[in-house]
Amino acid sequence: MSDEREQGRLTHFDAAGRAAMVDVSAKPVTERVAVARGRVVMAPATLARIEEGTMGKGDVLGVARIAGIMAAKRTSELIPLCHPLMLSRVAVDLVPAPPDAVEIEATVKLAGQTGVEMEALTAVTVAALTVYDMCKAVDRGMRIEAVRLVRKSGGKSGTYEAP
Amino acid sequence: MSDEREQGRLTHFDAAGRAAMVDVSAKPVTERVAVARGRVVMAPATLARIEEGTMGKGDVLGVARIAGIMAAKRTSELIPLCHPLMLSRVAVDLVPAPPDAVEIEATVKLAGQTGVEMEALTAVTVAALTVYDMCKAVDRGMRIEAVRLVRKSGGKSGTYEAP
Amino acid sequence: MSDEREQGRLTHFDAAGRAAMVDVSAKPVTERVAVARGRVVMAPATLARIEEGTMGKGDVLGVARIAGIMAAKRTSELIPLCHPLMLSRVAVDLVPAPPDAVEIEATVKLAGQTGVEMEALTAVTVAALTVYDMCKAVDRGMRIEAVRLVRKSGGKSGTYEAP
Amino acid sequence: MSDEREQGRLTHFDAAGRAAMVDVSAKPVTERVAVARGRVVMAPATLARIEEGTMGKGDVLGVARIAGIMAAKRTSELIPLCHPLMLSRVAVDLVPAPPDAVEIEATVKLAGQTGVEMEALTAVTVAALTVYDMCKAVDRGMRIEAVRLVRKSGGKSGTYEAP
Amino acid sequence: MSDEREQGRLTHFDAAGRAAMVDVSAKPVTERVAVARGRVVMAPATLARIEEGTMGKGDVLGVARIAGIMAAKRTSELIPLCHPLMLSRVAVDLVPAPPDAVEIEATVKLAGQTGVEMEALTAVTVAALTVYDMCKAVDRGMRIEAVRLVRKSGGKSGTYEAP
Amino acid sequence: MSDEREQGRLTHFDAAGRAAMVDVSAKPVTERVAVARGRVVMAPATLARIEEGTMGKGDVLGVARIAGIMAAKRTSELIPLCHPLMLSRVAVDLVPAPPDAVEIEATVKLAGQTGVEMEALTAVTVAALTVYDMCKAVDRGMRIEAVRLVRKSGGKSGTYEAP
Repeated sequence: MSDEREQGRLTHFDAAGRAAMVDVSAKPVTERVAVARGRVVMAPATLARIEEGTMGKGDVLGVARIAGIMAAKRTSELIPLCHPLMLSRVAVDLVPAPPDAVEIEATVKLAGQTGVEMEALTAVTVAALTVYDMCKAVDRGMRIEAVRLVRKSGGKSGTYEAP
Repeated sequence: MSDEREQGRLTHFDAAGRAAMVDVSAKPVTERVAVARGRVVMAPATLARIEEGTMGKGDVLGVARIAGIMAAKRTSELIPLCHPLMLSRVAVDLVPAPPDAVEIEATVKLAGQTGVEMEALTAVTVAALTVYDMCKAVDRGMRIEAVRLVRKSGGKSGTYEAP
Repeated sequence: MSDEREQGRLTHFDAAGRAAMVDVSAKPVTERVAVARGRVVMAPATLARIEEGTMGKGDVLGVARIAGIMAAKRTSELIPLCHPLMLSRVAVDLVPAPPDAVEIEATVKLAGQTGVEMEALTAVTVAALTVYDMCKAVDRGMRIEAVRLVRKSGGKSGTYEAP
Repeated sequence: MSDEREQGRLTHFDAAGRAAMVDVSAKPVTERVAVARGRVVMAPATLARIEEGTMGKGDVLGVARIAGIMAAKRTSELIPLCHPLMLSRVAVDLVPAPPDAVEIEATVKLAGQTGVEMEALTAVTVAALTVYDMCKAVDRGMRIEAVRLVRKSGGKSGTYEAP
Repeated sequence: MSDEREQGRLTHFDAAGRAAMVDVSAKPVTERVAVARGRVVMAPATLARIEEGTMGKGDVLGVARIAGIMAAKRTSELIPLCHPLMLSRVAVDLVPAPPDAVEIEATVKLAGQTGVEMEALTAVTVAALTVYDMCKAVDRGMRIEAVRLVRKSGGKSGTYEAP
Repeated sequence: MSDEREQGRLTHFDAAGRAAMVDVSAKPVTERVAVARGRVVMAPATLARIEEGTMGKGDVLGVARIAGIMAAKRTSELIPLCHPLMLSRVAVDLVPAPPDAVEIEATVKLAGQTGVEMEALTAVTVAALTVYDMCKAVDRGMRIEAVRLVRKSGGKSGTYEAP
């Protein structure tokens, strides 16, 4: 059972339905890891240009990696009810998936009282948005797809693996 | 032809492949509007809880709307090569799409020299992440899907409508 | 005696009067809680509109609650000599106080080496400013009043209750 | 009549009650000025210490002035539905008001399409919070009082003077 | 004569010596460009590693470029009396200067009422700090040197060229 | 040997050369202190004006001190691969060094798993930039020089003293 699930209601609301940042002070400090993934789908010609760039010029994926890492650190500023956290590791990887996609994976680690799923998901989405931004002049039809949590460990709920 | 497409290369890089924030000072000030959409796919039971909330308690969609609006204003802090902009309007709408999704649409408006696609896309993704955050205790398998630009007007390239 | 009061001088200055963020590294980690309150005084007609909104449309108090929670997390960016903190709980409550006021209360919790009074006070003031912003088109004469600490526990100075 | 008041409803909500950042793109660019004031009420002994500090050591009011100016620039990050603005002037003044208060006044100026009341009010409240922070070790009973708009000019609604 | 120099006093202070963000609303909108430079001096072996990295792995200079560009956009958050600006172009270049330095140059452009020197200088220093951060594990003795404005145009004071 | 140096490669890159925020979760929590220094070199007449100001009017050095302290807290937002940290102390000192310089020193302290060199260096550079900003109307030829780490303690690598 999830360590945040309580009596079947959404945990970010009190009994009267008021949003709040939930109290995590009674939770044990454990090592938390979360891995999230997503994908930017694009025209094959767009992917071809990105791949040329990674050969040494115009490194779209390198810029997007940095944007994703920096965004993970700012998750609590963006998501209203997320706790501020002192992340101990953030890595973001972007890999061309021919013929028409870039796959993105983010891994976030923390020794703390709350999970880091949102940080991993934020890293993936901001990296994806950065890919969009840098390629939008040649392809406005790109889509961000399949952003999801793939693995999570630590905390009372133990390990989660996406089916 | 796109107002940012020049000689077939990605416009955020100079001839030597170095990333830069492109010069928009010679572009005319026109009214720019961008509309983006996306979707959070979830278990039907999760959607049911969200819908109960909108009845007056635990308003997930209301919190996500605010998060999306606030994120649009911070796009240039998140996306490395985006210009800072004085947005003149931001609206975000989240609608339950039974049996298993929430549809999100963001509209951003500006009188300026550069488009606001990234602001609209950022609003959609942060609103989606906020839905995920508020429901993750009951459903870790949610996915953010189909984040894309649906319409854009203003600028040299004129109006774009997603096919 | 206060855990920050030393020889009767303001603790954010050194002996030469230079401002600094004070050293808290020797303080024990204890559970800290702070509760602050304040009030927005307005025309009775303005309060009436807010109350209509909370019935399901135009939820001024819900938006202000989110703004207050988010602001608490950014206190150390706003107040020059505040320490960055990993808050473990933030709750903000806004209640109509007929005929002419909205009462605001914020509760902030932390296991740490320094108090969270400023976080609670920041949450109250930003929630109050948000109420002002959303109602200013119909009432420019609103006033924010009586923002103060009402309770504090944890730390060397023990519990404080406002008289 | 206010330039933001429309048919008697709160302007930050659409007809269905959904919060949005209102469209200001059709408003003319005019010079906007707003002046806000507030007060920190404290023990006379606390004020005495602040006054000693302004004599050259431990300048509480100087630090609070800087905090207020910097906060004005970040108003749109704090208040969910405020527009980002390119302020052309911000001044904050803090004056001891014996026996037991510090009076704060902020003036903000902009050539733009929307007023700067919120920026002036934000400057006042953050300056007040900074005074509180720097003196809280000697006086936990301080209160922030009477934060209000005192004057506003520019825009369709013309000049407002607090009664 | 400088467009900010008035009667021989520092312009960020009023007659009573109080710091303020100066009023630029009466200044004409002109195209402003500023170019700043600086240098990170290091051990020759450190520079050799950076140069290996630019060949395709571990691109220190690429990461520093992005950091510098992003920092330029946040100058008004860091420097207390800087105006928020809508920069129209930011470019940062980092070039190895054997045997023992990396030279950094930033160019910032704006159509506005105030200069962009601070934005260019901020881009240079944050890019330099990023180089330091990424190489500090192998060389703690690096130094940031010669950060200065090299050229500025636009505004009442006309063009400035460093001697 | 440095606690971040591993097999002679730059630690912010993985084996494939991809930038990442390195994993510090296995490092022990120790008290970390870092001291950095730098200097703003200027015309003697500029220094004379600054010194007049510190006599009670127009306190350039006081404003720069606050800017440096606040910037230290935001280091992880500026430097892409820095960890977010809960600093326990920040002090910044600016001293006139006649005839033509201001010397700046920053001290940062933390009980944590990673060093605070970057925070101290960021405080120095932003304080220096603030001096530049406040004096640039009378002296555009100022230079920021000799920004470097002078001392560091804590962590596996023990104490470092600049030669």
